[in-house]
Amino acid sequence: MSTAITHIGELVTWEQDRPVRHDAGMVVEDGRVAWLGASADTPAADDVIDVDGRAVIPGFVDSHTHLVFAGDRAEEFAARMAGQRYEAGGIRTTVAATRAATEAELDQLARHRLAELRAQGTTTVEIKSGYGLDAATEERLLRVASGLTAETTYLGAHVVPQGWDADDYVALVTGEMLERCAPLAKWVDVFCETGAFDADRARTVLEAGIAAGLQARVHANQLGFGPGVQLACEVGAAAADHCTYLTDADVTSLADAGVVAGLLPGVEFSTRHPYPDARRLLDAGVTISIATDCNPGTSYTSSMPFCIALAVREMGLTPTEALHAATAGGAASLRRTDVGHLGLGARADLALLDAPSHLHLAYRPGVPLVTRVVTSSGAPRLADS
Amino acid sequence: MSTAITHIGELVTWEQDRPVRHDAGMVVEDGRVAWLGASADTPAADDVIDVDGRAVIPGFVDSHTHLVFAGDRAEEFAARMAGQRYEAGGIRTTVAATRAATEAELDQLARHRLAELRAQGTTTVEIKSGYGLDAATEERLLRVASGLTAETTYLGAHVVPQGWDADDYVALVTGEMLERCAPLAKWVDVFCETGAFDADRARTVLEAGIAAGLQARVHANQLGFGPGVQLACEVGAAAADHCTYLTDADVTSLADAGVVAGLLPGVEFSTRHPYPDARRLLDAGVTISIATDCNPGTSYTSSMPFCIALAVREMGLTPTEALHAATAGGAASLRRTDVGHLGLGARADLALLDAPSHLHLAYRPGVPLVTRVVTSSGAPRLADS
Repeated sequence: MSTAITHIGELVTWEQDRPVRHDAGMVVEDGRVAWLGASADTPAADDVIDVDGRAVIPGFVDSHTHLVFAGDRAEEFAARMAGQRYEAGGIRTTVAATRAATEAELDQLARHRLAELRAQGTTTVEIKSGYGLDAATEERLLRVASGLTAETTYLGAHVVPQGWDADDYVALVTGEMLERCAPLAKWVDVFCETGAFDADRARTVLEAGIAAGLQARVHANQLGFGPGVQLACEVGAAAADHCTYLTDADVTSLADAGVVAGLLPGVEFSTRHPYPDARRLLDAGVTISIATDCNPGTSYTSSMPFCIALAVREMGLTPTEALHAATAGGAASLRRTDVGHLGLGARADLALLDAPSHLHLAYRPGVPLVTRVVTSSGAPRLADS
Repeated sequence: MSTAITHIGELVTWEQDRPVRHDAGMVVEDGRVAWLGASADTPAADDVIDVDGRAVIPGFVDSHTHLVFAGDRAEEFAARMAGQRYEAGGIRTTVAATRAATEAELDQLARHRLAELRAQGTTTVEIKSGYGLDAATEERLLRVASGLTAETTYLGAHVVPQGWDADDYVALVTGEMLERCAPLAKWVDVFCETGAFDADRARTVLEAGIAAGLQARVHANQLGFGPGVQLACEVGAAAADHCTYLTDADVTSLADAGVVAGLLPGVEFSTRHPYPDARRLLDAGVTISIATDCNPGTSYTSSMPFCIALAVREMGLTPTEALHAATAGGAASLRRTDVGHLGLGARADLALLDAPSHLHLAYRPGVPLVTRVVTSSGAPRLADS
C-alpha cells in the first residue's frame, strides 16, 4: 500500500541539506517516507492526496504529558488566576480523584485526551504515571498508558503522598512499586524540586529505575534554582524538563552532557511563572524540546500549536525553531530517530495545515489549523476536514 | 419547529437573577430561547439534543474583525517576532493584495475565515472594510461583508493611502466613497492614531458617517495616548476599541458616556505591545468587550476562546468576566440586545463545549473545546462533533 501526497506548498522534513521544500511531493510506503521530490515528479501510488498548496509538517512529538488521571482542577485554576500561588502539593487533589477511578474509567478519559492531542497534530506522545502514589495505582496508570503509547514513564516519585515519611516513600518507589511498574515503562522520572524530592532522594529513585532497565528523565528547576539539572546530567538522563531557573553552570552542563532541555510553556501560561529563556539555551548549543505537559494542575492544554505560539511570543524562538523543538526536539528528548522529521525512511507521521506555511502556527495563535493527521501506525486518520 | 436541549451541566444565560444554571434544560422555538428550567422538567419538543453534562454558552459576539482581505503577512509577523516594530503603515501591504483580488476571490477568502470563526463558537461577527482605500474597492469589500453579516463597518479611514494628502483623502472618505459605502454599512469607523488620522480629521469622518445614517465606532488609543477615546465619547460612538493607553480622564469619560471599551488581546499577543488594563476599566464601571480583531497584520487569530484565555492570563479578568465580555460585551458594543445572552426571547445562538464548565475556556488554552454551534438563523450547524 502506497500513498502519494502532491502539491505540498511547503513540506518541512528537517533534512540536513534541505529542511524545508516547496511545491513538493512525497510517497509513503508501509508507513514510511519512501520518496521525496518535486510535486510534478511524484511517482504513481495506490492512493493520491492532493493538498493544493497547503503545508505538511512532521507530526508533533509531545515528550511530556500526564494524560492518565481523573477529576479536574478548574476551580483551583480560577483561584490561581485571581492571585493564589501554585505549590507542588496541588498534585494530591488529582491523586485522590485518580485513586477513586476504575481502570476502565481512566482508560476512557485518557483515550479522549489522546484523541484531542491527535486531532491537533500530535502523533507521538509520552505519558507519565504519578497520580497514583501507591504501587497498585501507579501500576494501573502505566497499564493504561502502555495501551496508548510506547513512551511510558514511571513517575512514582511525583510528590511524597500525604502522611508519608519521604525516605519511607522512596523505599516504596524503588522497591515494590518499581518492581510492578518497570515492566510497563520505558522511562523513570522524578520531580526534583523543593516540596517534592531533594537531590539525594531523586538520585536514589533514578538509579533504581536505571538498574531496573529504565532510562532516566527529570522534572528539574521549575520553581526555583536547584540540583535537578545537574542530577539529570550526572545520571545520563535523556531530558531535563522545565528548566526555568538555570545557572550558567546548568546551561553548560546540559550542552556538554547532551541532555535535552524540555520547555513547557503551557505551564508558565497557566501559572504566571516566568518563561524559561529558550534563546539562552539554543545559543549555548543545548537541544530543546517543546511539550504540552498536559495535566490538570498547571497546564491543561493538549495543543502543541498553542505551545509553539507561546514559545515564539514569550521565549524568543523563531516559528521555525519552535516547530523544530516541537517535532525533532521532542524526538531527541525521547531518543527516537524515526519520528519528528520526514526524511527518507522516517515514519510517515505528519500533519496537514490549513495554511501555506508552518509560520502560521505562530502567526495564527489559537486557530485549529491542523486539518488532517496521518500516522504510520495505521491508526485511524483523525481530524479529517 | 422546536428543539429541546437537555442535561446541560452548566448553562450560561447571563440572566440578571441567575446568570449560570446547572443541570438545566432549554427549548428553542423559531430560533429563539422559548423555555429555560431544570433538565428533568424540559417539555417535549420536535427534536432533542442530550448534551450529557456538558456546558452550553451563548455564541461569541466578535465585535471587531477585518475579515475581507487578500494576501497574508506571515513573513512580516516572523520579522516582528525577531525584533521589528509594528507601525500602522503595514496595512498598505494588504491593501495592495486586496485591490488586486476579484470580488469572488475576496468572498471565498472571507467565507473560509467566517467558517473558521463559526467552528470556534462565534455566531455574530462585525466585519470592517478598510483594505481598499479607494471608493470602488471599499464598496466591493462592504458588498462582500454584507453578504456575510448585518454588522458591517465602513472603515475607509483606516490609513491614508500612499501618495495621498491626508485632507484630500478625508474629502474622498466623506464624499464619493461614503456615498457608495453608506448603503452597505451599519457603522462608520476611523483609526484615530499617530500615523493614521488625527482628532480633527477623525471627527470629520465620523460626523459625515453619522450624517449619512451610520453609527460610530473608533479605533482608539492603541499605540499611545491620544484623542481617540475622547472623540468616541464626544460623538456618541458605541465603542472605542483597543484602549491600551488611557488617562484617568479617558476611563471616566468611557464610563460616563456609556461607550464600550473593546479589548483585542490577540493584537498584544501578536505585536508584543502591553496589554490593556481590563481590571481598571471594570472597576471604573466601563462596559468591556473582547474581540479577535482578526486581520493579517496584527492579530490573525479567529479564536474567541484564545482571546478569552489571554484576557484571563494577561488582563486580570476572571474566566467568567472574560466570557461575559466576549458575548454580552460584544453585543453591547454592537448595540444588540438579541444576542450575547441566552435569556428568554434571545436568539438561540449557542456553543456546546466539550467541557463541564465555561472555566475550561481559560483553563484549557488553545484546545478547540467548541464541538457544536447552533445558530438562530437556520445556518448550517458547523463543527458538529
